[in-house]
Amino acid sequence: MNENTPPAPTRGPLDHSVRDQVIEAAGRHFAHYGYEKTTVSDLAKAIGFSKAYIYKFFDSKQAIGQVICANRLALIMQAIEAATAGASSASERLRCLFRTLCEAGSDLFFHDRKLYDIAAVASREQWPSVLEHEARIRAIIQQIVVDGREAGEFERKTPLDDVVSAICLVMRPYINPAQLQYNLDATGEATVQLPAMILRSLAP
Amino acid sequence: MNENTPPAPTRGPLDHSVRDQVIEAAGRHFAHYGYEKTTVSDLAKAIGFSKAYIYKFFDSKQAIGQVICANRLALIMQAIEAATAGASSASERLRCLFRTLCEAGSDLFFHDRKLYDIAAVASREQWPSVLEHEARIRAIIQQIVVDGREAGEFERKTPLDDVVSAICLVMRPYINPAQLQYNLDATGEATVQLPAMILRSLAP
Repeated sequence: MNENTPPAPTRGPLDHSVRDQVIEAAGRHFAHYGYEKTTVSDLAKAIGFSKAYIYKFFDSKQAIGQVICANRLALIMQAIEAATAGASSASERLRCLFRTLCEAGSDLFFHDRKLYDIAAVASREQWPSVLEHEARIRAIIQQIVVDGREAGEFERKTPLDDVVSAICLVMRPYINPAQLQYNLDATGEATVQLPAMILRSLAP
Repeated sequence: MNENTPPAPTRGPLDHSVRDQVIEAAGRHFAHYGYEKTTVSDLAKAIGFSKAYIYKFFDSKQAIGQVICANRLALIMQAIEAATAGASSASERLRCLFRTLCEAGSDLFFHDRKLYDIAAVASREQWPSVLEHEARIRAIIQQIVVDGREAGEFERKTPLDDVVSAICLVMRPYINPAQLQYNLDATGEATVQLPAMILRSLAP
């Protein structure tokens, strides 16, 4: 595939393979040079495709960044599922969720700083993958609260929506990459104190 | 004072008056051109003092910014005192505190955008005036919790430090100017939902 005039793309396995190649190479390129400083021309040059060929598969640099961002968010979601699956109670699931989100964010910041920069752009610009991720986390929080209420662990007087909104607001500065960078010094304290406070607020 | 060779400064009322003049002019200049883009030379030119004369009173541009920042924080503190003074209970004081902090921050952001930029630099770089402000807010929160415990409004089992730390962490994204900009869309919901959750967590 290292040529400038590949065959016209057809829908099928080849398309997927080219898309994957672009994503993989773009991931490496962004991780090295940063998302904001990279242009589609830079990418085309680095991969060995023509710019026009890349545009057959992706509308823009952002479309490529979106896929990379969505892939990373999918990994975070898997980590959340793995961490919360073994939890013995709704309270424990809530603690695991918060801890996993803080860890995933810090990990991205400290070990993949350039990819963190994509995440920060994505969250500032409210990319669809970020909004979907936030909606999924909200749904997980809601399910934890519902399960905890059914099990008698949590109070049931407060409207469910209010409880879930408040928990989302408390977690948001640690989920949102644009904000997380200002809270990295506090994540140790936050992963202990904030779930503890949320759980006190949920006490029956 | 609109000359380049003013008399040598003496300690006393004159010093205060010159300092005030520099601060006032710098405030206007920063508000118009922004803090980060302004140099001490720009300021000296705008005020009509020599750069050397300004350096007799302030070590650096940051020293001037510090005073402007501290003055603004003092205004916010006055607003907090005025808002909480009339509150009939510890719960109401907590709600007032949160609302006033959000309003003061949003006001700065929307009406004094360039001064907000100084505040964002100050909070990113942890200027002493910002740390003092945060310490004062922590002390206010602690006093509200202690008063609420004494009045029987709040539970007394949880260690006071844990309760106060958690409340500070919840409020921080709305106090810290560097973070507030990412939460402006949420301040309406946050000023209702977050104090409500904190108060549920404090229920005896």
